Amino acid sequence: MPEATDSELMGKLVSLCKRRGFIFQSSEIYGGINGFWDYGPLGVELKRNVKEYWWRCMTREREDVVELDASIILHPQVWAASGHTSTFSDPMVDCKKCQGRFRADQLEEEACLEKPSKSVAACDAEKTEPRAFNLMFKTWLGPVESEENAAWLRPETAQAIFAQFKNVLDVSRQKLPFGICQIGKAFRNEINPRNYTFRSREFEQMELEYFIKPDAVSAAGEPSSEGEGEAQSRPEDWGWKEWHRYWVDQRMAWYRNIGLPEQQLKLHWQTGDELAHYAQATVDIMYRFPFGWQELEGIAARGDFDLRQHQQHSGKSLEFFDADTRQKYLPQVIEPSAGVDRLVLALLCQAYGEEMIPNAQGKPERRIVMKFHPRMAPCKVGVFPLNKNRPPLVAKAKAIHDRLKDRYLTAFDLTGSIGKRYARHDEIGTPFGVTVDFDTVGDGESDHLKDTVTVRDRDTTQQTRVPIAELESWLAEKLA
Amino acid sequence: MPEATDSELMGKLVSLCKRRGFIFQSSEIYGGINGFWDYGPLGVELKRNVKEYWWRCMTREREDVVELDASIILHPQVWAASGHTSTFSDPMVDCKKCQGRFRADQLEEEACLEKPSKSVAACDAEKTEPRAFNLMFKTWLGPVESEENAAWLRPETAQAIFAQFKNVLDVSRQKLPFGICQIGKAFRNEINPRNYTFRSREFEQMELEYFIKPDAVSAAGEPSSEGEGEAQSRPEDWGWKEWHRYWVDQRMAWYRNIGLPEQQLKLHWQTGDELAHYAQATVDIMYRFPFGWQELEGIAARGDFDLRQHQQHSGKSLEFFDADTRQKYLPQVIEPSAGVDRLVLALLCQAYGEEMIPNAQGKPERRIVMKFHPRMAPCKVGVFPLNKNRPPLVAKAKAIHDRLKDRYLTAFDLTGSIGKRYARHDEIGTPFGVTVDFDTVGDGESDHLKDTVTVRDRDTTQQTRVPIAELESWLAEKLA
Repeated sequence: MPEATDSELMGKLVSLCKRRGFIFQSSEIYGGINGFWDYGPLGVELKRNVKEYWWRCMTREREDVVELDASIILHPQVWAASGHTSTFSDPMVDCKKCQGRFRADQLEEEACLEKPSKSVAACDAEKTEPRAFNLMFKTWLGPVESEENAAWLRPETAQAIFAQFKNVLDVSRQKLPFGICQIGKAFRNEINPRNYTFRSREFEQMELEYFIKPDAVSAAGEPSSEGEGEAQSRPEDWGWKEWHRYWVDQRMAWYRNIGLPEQQLKLHWQTGDELAHYAQATVDIMYRFPFGWQELEGIAARGDFDLRQHQQHSGKSLEFFDADTRQKYLPQVIEPSAGVDRLVLALLCQAYGEEMIPNAQGKPERRIVMKFHPRMAPCKVGVFPLNKNRPPLVAKAKAIHDRLKDRYLTAFDLTGSIGKRYARHDEIGTPFGVTVDFDTVGDGESDHLKDTVTVRDRDTTQQTRVPIAELESWLAEKLA
Repeated sequence: MPEATDSELMGKLVSLCKRRGFIFQSSEIYGGINGFWDYGPLGVELKRNVKEYWWRCMTREREDVVELDASIILHPQVWAASGHTSTFSDPMVDCKKCQGRFRADQLEEEACLEKPSKSVAACDAEKTEPRAFNLMFKTWLGPVESEENAAWLRPETAQAIFAQFKNVLDVSRQKLPFGICQIGKAFRNEINPRNYTFRSREFEQMELEYFIKPDAVSAAGEPSSEGEGEAQSRPEDWGWKEWHRYWVDQRMAWYRNIGLPEQQLKLHWQTGDELAHYAQATVDIMYRFPFGWQELEGIAARGDFDLRQHQQHSGKSLEFFDADTRQKYLPQVIEPSAGVDRLVLALLCQAYGEEMIPNAQGKPERRIVMKFHPRMAPCKVGVFPLNKNRPPLVAKAKAIHDRLKDRYLTAFDLTGSIGKRYARHDEIGTPFGVTVDFDTVGDGESDHLKDTVTVRDRDTTQQTRVPIAELESWLAEKLA
């Protein structure tokens, strides 16, 4: 089967996502709204699986991470302290003739409002000097639209964690190192949202701020003789380089655990030019999307930049009191910051496949199959009575469905030939299809198959006969 | 023990919520921001329990409800169609002398800006005529702050469900009646946020839009002879009154299931004057907060108002094709709409208690105890080695903790006397405390107690000896 080009692939994926209810354009009946997307029934489940697994790995499987759920609108001083008010911007120019406003670094690509066939760069009309356009969405608190009432939608969840560091520390009985994590929405007024849901104006983040001792305190100040980034044996002695490396490794392993293969992932260590002013080092975890290598997550070593800024702007001490050394100091921070929506998109891209497989008559037929990792698949099991007009088959299948559905998202599907039902579930990525046939209810030719069902594997299309009594443990092992 | 007054109770609760990490003021180090709140480690868990249980009851335990997760910023036409642009407002007047802006219906209560001891009503300065101030937060898409680029943060999650009705219907293979549910943030620019987290500017909703056949189609058009709201036997024949009553009963039962007692809840059937223009009937589920009876949830019968409005404004058909009757029509809607934050607040208010209980020496001591329903309690189990300096006790307790923690949020607590640890967990509402003592490890006086632990019940303070081998099933029954 000829391989689809990357843009064909994206087109097919976008179409499947709408057709099967993963992703819709926001406000579609009104022509949509640029940079905003809605998740349909299956998309909600896929996104929930991503967030729940991250949450479980961060908060349930670790004892050194606690949780925060902060508001989206924060005090404007938070953004003054973090630097977002002054520096989180794109340079824009205004055209004095057509009144259009354009990104100064994209004049070649943007179309003139009066002659859209021409680029703005090619138009002679006078432009203003570039001015910074802040990417935070602005609003007002209360009825008066004046600058003193201005507020912004958070462009990242991280700053709320820094602003609440002391409150969380006071209640959580943690010592360094420990982390505070948060999942929530953030907003960026992108001039040019693009690549489907990849760069959108409203998105969800999963962020961890992991607070560690400064190297001077952890006695890691001296570079390890074993070379940069090499971990010392005892985590208490680790410096920021070891912790940074630790989180890069943890997060890479996490992505592999949800079905993104090694060869589709790579690390990009930001160079001096790329590094933000606050960062000691930043590593981007990149995924190869059909539209190129793009960032899934950034892991930054932020030093004590943020806590220091908030301490200074608020006048409140954000120091940690170290009971062991009887010192007070500002912790340093390692920040693994992941985008939920772009990860969902990566999982969709990775899962999409077209194959020829033999049908019931052995004739090759084309199928679309979403090969999600079982852990991420929105629907885990489909249960099908072979024939919907035979009450014993339907009743047995329904009983199996009802027993499974408390544990897994399970579909009960009656309509169409069994091949059609398999195909329907291939397209939404259901890992296992359980079929109840005449043998199951003791009404077939093989008596020894009574009380067994056929389980079909989505990826291999192989069918296995499993006793109903063992079905739950059989599935539990595969879906762990 | 003398009962605290209601305002004393709120003061104590607010203090506990900060001290133990349930709720913090947003941006507290900058003096806070009026109407915005953050959830700390325990608050996040409490809120998660509320949302997860609602989600489970709506989507896992029912087969007639599917899911949506829509964007917060929607196309402005959505709010034109719903009526929010023109009618979702409070009347405001401006003072021509001090330039203050005040709610026209609260001039008696608001203080004059120049003489704060005087009310605005008592001041002679000339005021403008009342003008409508819209309660939606406004922002701009893209770099130009012009009216054509204005957009609003959603003041409710419901409208996105109506706008996506057709897309969801097309993918979900549902027939009427069926529902679409959503949990998400909404924003209202309240002039006067109040009552702690009850009336805030940023909040979370859990909404279900349940689509039903019009009475004319369901043959319920004729009022039942058994009286208003009386359910017919077959749900297919139910009209909107039966479905409305059904959802009121369902939701009341749900609140009782999470620990809000009958006598603290009541129904308020809105009267003709109170009803919104679109509503056929609305019932508010009220909870008795320390600051009075207030609404937790509204259950409105909205007819086909919303779908009709969106159909008209978008020019897209939102009709349902009924394969049984071969008719096309707009479904009617029953909307149970609940506030997450106010429910969390109700659970906190309901849980708070102060009592005198005997200490280890039998002397009465005051305790603060949060009597959350076990299903809602953020931390389910505390595991305590009796003595932290005895390695066998610590190791055994740690092993029990590690086995329980995958299933329940479980705390491992070493420090302080056992009484102090119980008290600490009473204050955060942990239902069960498991203590590993010398008998547990076969190092006590009672050989027959080897491999058993003490389980203390938070509410009765009674202690039960439970074999470790039975601990999981013992807890599973109590925490179901």
